[in-house]
Amino acid sequence: MKIAVIGCGYWGNHLLRNFYQSKDWELAYACDTDQKQLDKFAVMYPEAKTTTDYAEIMADNSVDAVAIATPVHTHYDIALAALEAGKHAWVEKPLTDSSASARKLIEAAEKNNVQLHVDHTYIYTPAVQKIKDLIDNDELGDFRYFDSIRVNLGLFQHDINVVWDLAPHDFSILHYCIGKKPIAVNATGKALEKYGTKEIESIAYITVHFEDNTMAHFNVNWMSPVKIRQIIVGGSKKMLVFNDMSTDEKLKIYDSGVSIQNREEIYDTLIQYRTGDMYSPRVENKEALKTEVEHFYECVKAGKATITDGTSGLYVVQLLEAAEISIKNNGKLVEL
Amino acid sequence: MKIAVIGCGYWGNHLLRNFYQSKDWELAYACDTDQKQLDKFAVMYPEAKTTTDYAEIMADNSVDAVAIATPVHTHYDIALAALEAGKHAWVEKPLTDSSASARKLIEAAEKNNVQLHVDHTYIYTPAVQKIKDLIDNDELGDFRYFDSIRVNLGLFQHDINVVWDLAPHDFSILHYCIGKKPIAVNATGKALEKYGTKEIESIAYITVHFEDNTMAHFNVNWMSPVKIRQIIVGGSKKMLVFNDMSTDEKLKIYDSGVSIQNREEIYDTLIQYRTGDMYSPRVENKEALKTEVEHFYECVKAGKATITDGTSGLYVVQLLEAAEISIKNNGKLVEL
Amino acid sequence: MKIAVIGCGYWGNHLLRNFYQSKDWELAYACDTDQKQLDKFAVMYPEAKTTTDYAEIMADNSVDAVAIATPVHTHYDIALAALEAGKHAWVEKPLTDSSASARKLIEAAEKNNVQLHVDHTYIYTPAVQKIKDLIDNDELGDFRYFDSIRVNLGLFQHDINVVWDLAPHDFSILHYCIGKKPIAVNATGKALEKYGTKEIESIAYITVHFEDNTMAHFNVNWMSPVKIRQIIVGGSKKMLVFNDMSTDEKLKIYDSGVSIQNREEIYDTLIQYRTGDMYSPRVENKEALKTEVEHFYECVKAGKATITDGTSGLYVVQLLEAAEISIKNNGKLVEL
Amino acid sequence: MKIAVIGCGYWGNHLLRNFYQSKDWELAYACDTDQKQLDKFAVMYPEAKTTTDYAEIMADNSVDAVAIATPVHTHYDIALAALEAGKHAWVEKPLTDSSASARKLIEAAEKNNVQLHVDHTYIYTPAVQKIKDLIDNDELGDFRYFDSIRVNLGLFQHDINVVWDLAPHDFSILHYCIGKKPIAVNATGKALEKYGTKEIESIAYITVHFEDNTMAHFNVNWMSPVKIRQIIVGGSKKMLVFNDMSTDEKLKIYDSGVSIQNREEIYDTLIQYRTGDMYSPRVENKEALKTEVEHFYECVKAGKATITDGTSGLYVVQLLEAAEISIKNNGKLVEL
Repeated sequence: MKIAVIGCGYWGNHLLRNFYQSKDWELAYACDTDQKQLDKFAVMYPEAKTTTDYAEIMADNSVDAVAIATPVHTHYDIALAALEAGKHAWVEKPLTDSSASARKLIEAAEKNNVQLHVDHTYIYTPAVQKIKDLIDNDELGDFRYFDSIRVNLGLFQHDINVVWDLAPHDFSILHYCIGKKPIAVNATGKALEKYGTKEIESIAYITVHFEDNTMAHFNVNWMSPVKIRQIIVGGSKKMLVFNDMSTDEKLKIYDSGVSIQNREEIYDTLIQYRTGDMYSPRVENKEALKTEVEHFYECVKAGKATITDGTSGLYVVQLLEAAEISIKNNGKLVEL
Repeated sequence: MKIAVIGCGYWGNHLLRNFYQSKDWELAYACDTDQKQLDKFAVMYPEAKTTTDYAEIMADNSVDAVAIATPVHTHYDIALAALEAGKHAWVEKPLTDSSASARKLIEAAEKNNVQLHVDHTYIYTPAVQKIKDLIDNDELGDFRYFDSIRVNLGLFQHDINVVWDLAPHDFSILHYCIGKKPIAVNATGKALEKYGTKEIESIAYITVHFEDNTMAHFNVNWMSPVKIRQIIVGGSKKMLVFNDMSTDEKLKIYDSGVSIQNREEIYDTLIQYRTGDMYSPRVENKEALKTEVEHFYECVKAGKATITDGTSGLYVVQLLEAAEISIKNNGKLVEL
Repeated sequence: MKIAVIGCGYWGNHLLRNFYQSKDWELAYACDTDQKQLDKFAVMYPEAKTTTDYAEIMADNSVDAVAIATPVHTHYDIALAALEAGKHAWVEKPLTDSSASARKLIEAAEKNNVQLHVDHTYIYTPAVQKIKDLIDNDELGDFRYFDSIRVNLGLFQHDINVVWDLAPHDFSILHYCIGKKPIAVNATGKALEKYGTKEIESIAYITVHFEDNTMAHFNVNWMSPVKIRQIIVGGSKKMLVFNDMSTDEKLKIYDSGVSIQNREEIYDTLIQYRTGDMYSPRVENKEALKTEVEHFYECVKAGKATITDGTSGLYVVQLLEAAEISIKNNGKLVEL
Repeated sequence: MKIAVIGCGYWGNHLLRNFYQSKDWELAYACDTDQKQLDKFAVMYPEAKTTTDYAEIMADNSVDAVAIATPVHTHYDIALAALEAGKHAWVEKPLTDSSASARKLIEAAEKNNVQLHVDHTYIYTPAVQKIKDLIDNDELGDFRYFDSIRVNLGLFQHDINVVWDLAPHDFSILHYCIGKKPIAVNATGKALEKYGTKEIESIAYITVHFEDNTMAHFNVNWMSPVKIRQIIVGGSKKMLVFNDMSTDEKLKIYDSGVSIQNREEIYDTLIQYRTGDMYSPRVENKEALKTEVEHFYECVKAGKATITDGTSGLYVVQLLEAAEISIKNNGKLVEL
């Protein structure tokens, strides 16, 4: 099957390489507005055509699928064009800049009987796959809370805020691993640095409420000289800590430990460091994007949705949208 | 100088031991409602009298100060009695259960010309003292954000929620080290376990806003089999990470690192782990309570306020109060 | 039962406190050559007598046992006096300064029908007790190797070298947990700082050989500004890592993981961080000396040997002796 | 300049890729005995010729240099052929299987006026470059000891033992960073698993003695399910810890801290975790082999030796040889 990559910046480069190396896909086009980049790709991937005009790709009937890694506000137009041209669409996260347009893409994919895939790459990491397994096997017990911290190395975006930049990763993990329907969102955030007249939040805290009175919380932050990427999932039986910056102990699962019965036990517990055993399963060291490229091919071939299809993309965009409204309204509850 | 300890539970025990071992203080009384406990103390501290009635202490003119480690809702009455009896008062944190009563205690102390000290023990740890030094020496640059996580070993209180139990530590550190005036609070929380008919929050997230558009955030949680106690202070020059569970690297200070100028540098940064150097100053291993007992003595003797006086206590209680109101009102902004 | 503590320096202080607080023992004497120290203890432990002459204790028939925490070269004389006076002896590690004198103490204890206990405190830590359990339950499989590192904070002794100072801890753990009979020792070491004319080794490496062609290795070092205390036990099924400086993950047990079959798997393994799962059992936070004091009482009462009796003491002294000879002879093999 | 890669196994693959991507080098040949591998490279590197006979390369006058990544016992013959053909030689570590043959290669390179480079890749990692800088700037003070641990994921070699497999890394770091002349070696080791009738050591401990009474120690081990790669360099002013498995704190430098003066300070120190400050410089995340390929080109062009030339290779082989002799002789001192 033939695929075209539209938008060949940092992430587009990784897409080009992975589709090129894939035994399933034939890389048919590299499309970008920067001719100098395209010239480079012409040497690296001699079998692929290059173009600065994505309409050329839409008009080429031999192309089965397109992978879109352009700025967020352009996703809707390009993806819609692809879907309506009968091509499967792989769209960089977040799917679109509004839930309304995300819904339209889902409809367009259905109408044209093609797959709409959202590139929530994190879902394809061995660590998140392992978390999903653990939860599906009821290792953690009843869900209690989801707590995420994603703090990055002072890399500021000038077009989107920290929520739209970083939270899609964690929202997609929440959707995939927990899957609960959110009913409302509170969020607070600050624009700690100014860019001309724009106020772009560089730090934000988001609470997501679920129907069963449980919650998820997200801490996203651009203002750091050190990376932190940590997710805690609290369950009635066990607690899972996912530290993505660790090489050898990415996942730790803690037993809840003995229940505390009396005053003396409480005093003892105050000086303990933990109440139960911990184990840390081995996590493979495989490139997520490679797994995702294989999965996309298999789903397209079988005519079925990927595990990060339009539904997943919409879930994430809805939360992003609600978080932004809440931030602009002093943290007030935004119902979904 | 003579001191009486009122309330001899877990923390009261530590107070008894520290005042007993102090070369400055003479432990005059141990007061508790549990006679069995008192009998134990009579053996351990033979020079101290024991009583179940704190009025006896108030009536004893030889007593210079009282240390109150009773349940929160009783602090106001006992502390007021002490202050009006002309005794210096050391009150367990939080100072009271309302900002109104905290204000009255401050007034009573002033009127009676005695010291009102709040036992925010954390302030007296070598690590927090070092943080204060670093900030006072402008090591971090302009304040950007304060981010705290305090997650505990499944120890539930049945009378107060997790905010009143755990957040006083972090609010007092915020007051002491940053000292900015909060203008508003948002908070969300959930009661994940039921106790009869009571709904007591066991997990909560609190945002505190300051006048200069910076913020602080607090994550408090009882639902964990592993302890996490971490505070990040972001500054324009450096970032400080205080991990209180570490024995040998409690404090880490990260340089902000080089500023990122162009596209290639951004791509490079995406695969880096940090952008600047880090250093970790040595932190002594001294019992905070010992330092606090010495400081209280020196302040009482000199007739001046301790570094955690009524003002500090009131600051903390105001934030607790506002957080609770916000939680009960779906996270809405509570102005101070 | 009544006990006397002879030698009240750093460790003697801990012994005094633990015997004083024990419900089993009555602290009868504190004996030291420093009258000023004794005066201090007279206040702290008013029920205990003080003396500068240990013969007084030997002559007191009401004393059941003595705990000896004097310099190593004095252990033999004092312990022998105690044993011959029919008193149980608790001797600070190492038991004596030669295996010949250690053997004589074992004989004296047997002849006088009293217990000879060596204070290898480490054996009574919850972590070492857990390691022993794991090995006894065959969790690790066949023993392969024992690898220990004990690096200390630049604390130099001026009478004994680093081997005699630090290795007794690890040799006693080897004896208790592995228990194999050593057949030979190689050791190398250096005196990196001079003290007058004495050459006292401050860094040393010791290999212990067992009959079944397995080995143990010990790295002891005074020259460090940071503490490292780590033991690895390799087994055919699992590997155990004991990091005593960690508060919450003192023990980690690693599965050996899948066996590697072919060239591609080897290449994969080269980029992995580990090959199997890991678990970290909870380890209690209990003072080892308290457990040891209880155990000593029970054994004395029951008339049976403690788990660190003279045999354990002799095992340790033999290895110390052999290591010293090997160091002085350029690392040559010293057979036992 | 044109280069040929001889031996295209695991490491040869990395060499091919790096020379291919280099702007300095033209990859002229891929040579291996396995035609199937060569067919693969013909597709990946279409500009390079493939051959199973390295004599073909030696006879090609357009080839400037060869990179040899064949089994150790073949290094000498191939490298000698290359040097005598007037080609620069890049030889995989260890340089040869004996110091005699290493010396002959050094002579042959001199006679033919070409460069003999040993691929001690570790030297070109940003971390080792940083260590060298620190030592050259006298950050650590006088050298005291070098202590290395290299424990690998159960990857057994069937032709060489663990010393020849793993120690070259650490010996080359010792040579590059410390550079002291070794005068003698002790080593012990065990073959813990049997391979037919061969006894191949899978665990070994090596002590290297220097003239000034300092020492280095090496712990190499194949028997582990977890990787450990740690080097400690002790100096009179500071101590450096290089943990190569850490992503964000590869290097830590500890101040020696205050000197301890009296008995009370000693007791205090016993409960401290470290005695001085620590800092951890940022270490870039750059592929060492890329740096090495650039350095090799610059040195060849300038007609000067690389920082890991034949001298470095000989230093390493001498220590390997001495360690093996000592192991076979029960750890006895082998003088160099």
